[in-house]
Amino acid sequence: MTLTPEQSAEIAEARSHSRPTLRATAEGMERHLYSAHQVLDHGLVRVIDYMGDDAAICQAARVSYGRGTRAVSNDEGLIRYLMRHWHSTPFEMCEVKLHVKLPVFVARQWIRHRTANVNEYSARYSILEREFYIPAPEHLAAQSTVNNQGRGELLQGDEAQRVLDILRDDATRAYDHYEAMLSQDGQKGLARELARMNLPANVYTQWYWKVDLHNLFHFLRLRADAHAQYEIRAYAEAICAIVRDWVPLAYAAFEDYRLGGVTLSGRAVAVLRRRLAGEAVTQESSGMSKGEWREFEALWG
Amino acid sequence: MTLTPEQSAEIAEARSHSRPTLRATAEGMERHLYSAHQVLDHGLVRVIDYMGDDAAICQAARVSYGRGTRAVSNDEGLIRYLMRHWHSTPFEMCEVKLHVKLPVFVARQWIRHRTANVNEYSARYSILEREFYIPAPEHLAAQSTVNNQGRGELLQGDEAQRVLDILRDDATRAYDHYEAMLSQDGQKGLARELARMNLPANVYTQWYWKVDLHNLFHFLRLRADAHAQYEIRAYAEAICAIVRDWVPLAYAAFEDYRLGGVTLSGRAVAVLRRRLAGEAVTQESSGMSKGEWREFEALWG
Amino acid sequence: MTLTPEQSAEIAEARSHSRPTLRATAEGMERHLYSAHQVLDHGLVRVIDYMGDDAAICQAARVSYGRGTRAVSNDEGLIRYLMRHWHSTPFEMCEVKLHVKLPVFVARQWIRHRTANVNEYSARYSILEREFYIPAPEHLAAQSTVNNQGRGELLQGDEAQRVLDILRDDATRAYDHYEAMLSQDGQKGLARELARMNLPANVYTQWYWKVDLHNLFHFLRLRADAHAQYEIRAYAEAICAIVRDWVPLAYAAFEDYRLGGVTLSGRAVAVLRRRLAGEAVTQESSGMSKGEWREFEALWG
Amino acid sequence: MTLTPEQSAEIAEARSHSRPTLRATAEGMERHLYSAHQVLDHGLVRVIDYMGDDAAICQAARVSYGRGTRAVSNDEGLIRYLMRHWHSTPFEMCEVKLHVKLPVFVARQWIRHRTANVNEYSARYSILEREFYIPAPEHLAAQSTVNNQGRGELLQGDEAQRVLDILRDDATRAYDHYEAMLSQDGQKGLARELARMNLPANVYTQWYWKVDLHNLFHFLRLRADAHAQYEIRAYAEAICAIVRDWVPLAYAAFEDYRLGGVTLSGRAVAVLRRRLAGEAVTQESSGMSKGEWREFEALWG
Repeated sequence: MTLTPEQSAEIAEARSHSRPTLRATAEGMERHLYSAHQVLDHGLVRVIDYMGDDAAICQAARVSYGRGTRAVSNDEGLIRYLMRHWHSTPFEMCEVKLHVKLPVFVARQWIRHRTANVNEYSARYSILEREFYIPAPEHLAAQSTVNNQGRGELLQGDEAQRVLDILRDDATRAYDHYEAMLSQDGQKGLARELARMNLPANVYTQWYWKVDLHNLFHFLRLRADAHAQYEIRAYAEAICAIVRDWVPLAYAAFEDYRLGGVTLSGRAVAVLRRRLAGEAVTQESSGMSKGEWREFEALWG
Repeated sequence: MTLTPEQSAEIAEARSHSRPTLRATAEGMERHLYSAHQVLDHGLVRVIDYMGDDAAICQAARVSYGRGTRAVSNDEGLIRYLMRHWHSTPFEMCEVKLHVKLPVFVARQWIRHRTANVNEYSARYSILEREFYIPAPEHLAAQSTVNNQGRGELLQGDEAQRVLDILRDDATRAYDHYEAMLSQDGQKGLARELARMNLPANVYTQWYWKVDLHNLFHFLRLRADAHAQYEIRAYAEAICAIVRDWVPLAYAAFEDYRLGGVTLSGRAVAVLRRRLAGEAVTQESSGMSKGEWREFEALWG
Repeated sequence: MTLTPEQSAEIAEARSHSRPTLRATAEGMERHLYSAHQVLDHGLVRVIDYMGDDAAICQAARVSYGRGTRAVSNDEGLIRYLMRHWHSTPFEMCEVKLHVKLPVFVARQWIRHRTANVNEYSARYSILEREFYIPAPEHLAAQSTVNNQGRGELLQGDEAQRVLDILRDDATRAYDHYEAMLSQDGQKGLARELARMNLPANVYTQWYWKVDLHNLFHFLRLRADAHAQYEIRAYAEAICAIVRDWVPLAYAAFEDYRLGGVTLSGRAVAVLRRRLAGEAVTQESSGMSKGEWREFEALWG
Repeated sequence: MTLTPEQSAEIAEARSHSRPTLRATAEGMERHLYSAHQVLDHGLVRVIDYMGDDAAICQAARVSYGRGTRAVSNDEGLIRYLMRHWHSTPFEMCEVKLHVKLPVFVARQWIRHRTANVNEYSARYSILEREFYIPAPEHLAAQSTVNNQGRGELLQGDEAQRVLDILRDDATRAYDHYEAMLSQDGQKGLARELARMNLPANVYTQWYWKVDLHNLFHFLRLRADAHAQYEIRAYAEAICAIVRDWVPLAYAAFEDYRLGGVTLSGRAVAVLRRRLAGEAVTQESSGMSKGEWREFEALWG
């Protein structure tokens, strides 16, 4: 992560001014505000603003639990109940705004989550920085031989080196040419909106991303998952650590019911019941396909 | 508006605790927090939380206006530019959460705006209050004879009195019967989710409603409009007054470009140009239908 | 359900004209088009239009599975894979448009699903019909004593009769008064947008509702569930029967993974594993709250 | 546009099978189904499916205009009325599904429109084709000197040639290296999800894109506009030509009220009124900023 001295000064300045508010505040989140958490080699995540806390989730839910209902004994129980029964609207009452710097190929996966607000740095208006993601050796993996969408063994030796050389050289050359085409020194200079097309997908972009907690949890469930591409998972994990400090009760429920939870099909429920009753069930007698059975056994042995 | 002493005490309590925050604060909005603004006879609007201010809009927009662009000289100019050119994402960076108490028939119009988060008081879980909207005499209007969706002259004398008597008596009887059906005194008591079906559309409900500023402006443009039904317009106007204090620059731009602005068809532009050139244009020579011409003349004479 | 002779004739007319198309067609759905399926006493569901079929889901998914992937052997396997791994976008490629007639209190639950398109019959412009939902005796239930949002035993004898009398009499009187207020016979007549507020929540309204298959499945999972209020469940079940004929493979996967599936928390997974290993686990040793344990035991014994 | 013989055969095959349907059909759209419309050098737009026609818009709107309203004399008048008064829901009742092949930098602008359904060809699972967008000479423009987001004069002679050489050479080299890194010939072969990061933003991707007519009009208003980047405008214009054949009445209203229409601020309305009354208004006396005045004069002289 490369913050310029100006950027570091701006962050320090932003963190130096405390103001009084009557709103709900989350102390764990105040500690994160504006500070840059490094992700990958040049990326970052920064909390710019937030709305609400664990109590705000309960306060909104209790509009739905007014006079006539029995008391839900405490906030933790209520939050776990809401998460267990897939209530989404109370979690939508919290909101967070992040500043994220990320490679374009990660941004392209990220933006598929549509229920969020985004302001991206525009390469039509502005000139992108000379910053590219180059994988660390421990993430430079071969195509998986069993999973079309995953990685297998690490590349070694010469092959690893060749890949790193290609990625670095091509990025450097592409950016040199980007600058050369933009240059107005002795020539007109190509329009920025055209010149950018020469830049590869590991160039860094940045955006402001604002999302409610329910949709953030949905994003994190998919992107902090072991099947997500490592590079976006790195961002998801950095955000998980922030959310844990922001809404600890909601995050704990999310961790138990979503990150650590599993969904069983009706067939899988039937097989587990037979097993609990002492029966030995095979793929053939399970009613599952080979693929389903493989996933089932990976979980239950 | 009928706040119980307990509710008033809760509001006073909420307003008595100031906490330090590093987030952006809007002083005009801090003054509104938690206080109840009366709308109609028993309704209210209260600000529960907010995120962002005028500067946050510009900050997000400038992610799209980084290095290489000319400086936009000031926030007001930038905000007016964004509003004029229908940029929506910077305004989405502000968010507000309101507590609203409103008649069910208003809630049914309101909920048509889908890009917001809602937690409504549940009449499956809870018992609704004995509160009904009864129009003030100055809002008790006849069906318009020229507009199928509007109101015409005020009702007078006996007719007005008959209407008010019906609304009051039917609401009272419906609520008496609601309570009678629910009662577990000497009987089982009907399920709340069934008993509620006896209540008329002027019964009050309440909800938490959270929305970003772009979508709030869209709501206000349609619902603060003269063609909106008076009862929802009353809420829109109360919210306008709040938003003016929250983001004064954005609100002023909204007022000029949306509330006070007009959209012209290509045909209308052509007619105006001919008029500016001194030509007298009639409906026949305008290319417009009678309905379009009537609306055009209402605006331009 | 009360179709006027004119409405029946319009439906017959619509079903009498077949046209050639190059689009994908689903024979099972063609049989449903325009016909009215009765729901509750006066409600209905009709298919007005549809887009796509099982093959369209696979066709869209395979844009994501082009050259370089192994063949997924058949559509059924692919659809089950997509459902199992929570892929949503291929299912969004199918769309259905329904005409629904439903009581207002059901419409209020239904509209909470925001990712759909709705055109509702307007009581500002038009006069509502004299039609009200009155529960059949087998649905006239008492408030549950164990579940704040549910029903318990059926009401019997005099209590049931009193409730039915109240619902019928109040609805009749409210509608009589609605007409009396609207009447322009010897008086101005109250605006329709005001008069409607006298009508109770069991009055029928109607709308066109258009939704994609992914969001429809989400709706059906929540509303065809045993915890949903009976009256909206009746609509969900009628729609399930239609979807089964439209996209049989997708519906079968939905039935297995969603309707018949369960979600386990990390704690529940741990308990099941201990049980499978032969351990007797109690609530105390499970790490679950009493409520969670009760739900867990209901499922697993 | 490069269709393989297999692709051309698949299209011919798809167009050869007509099936009967009871659904609404649009003859103008049937002629487009599956055929490939070329856009840019290698891009395309194909209609895969559609739902509804002009009559479907009116049919849905009239649910809101039932008994009690005056007849709107014809569909054209109703559609123009709906467009003029910003009614959105009736237009949402039509839906279209397109197959689009487009450069990644265009895809990145396109995806900002969130209210649509997308299935994109996955470069995690699959290998991208060796196809890159290279601008035609008449689109190779310099950065505008007056507009930070636009293009100015065309590049000429050597400068143009240098740019084209760079774009072609860098794309070719990047793709050669992409293949070299993926190759499993004598090495493990880099994971596809990593290798793709070397490809520049002018590489072609493809997706299925499904959107309702209201949101499509919104997309077209912004992207068929003279301020949109040429490359996405080329797609918008190709889609405009298709929509004109699909829903001719709605498209004509869209053209008059949106593409050909203008939005005036309250200040601009005031200035026009003063001018119509014979007054000569200057920027100073207009209340507008210089930027607003420049845009105002560009339109009104």
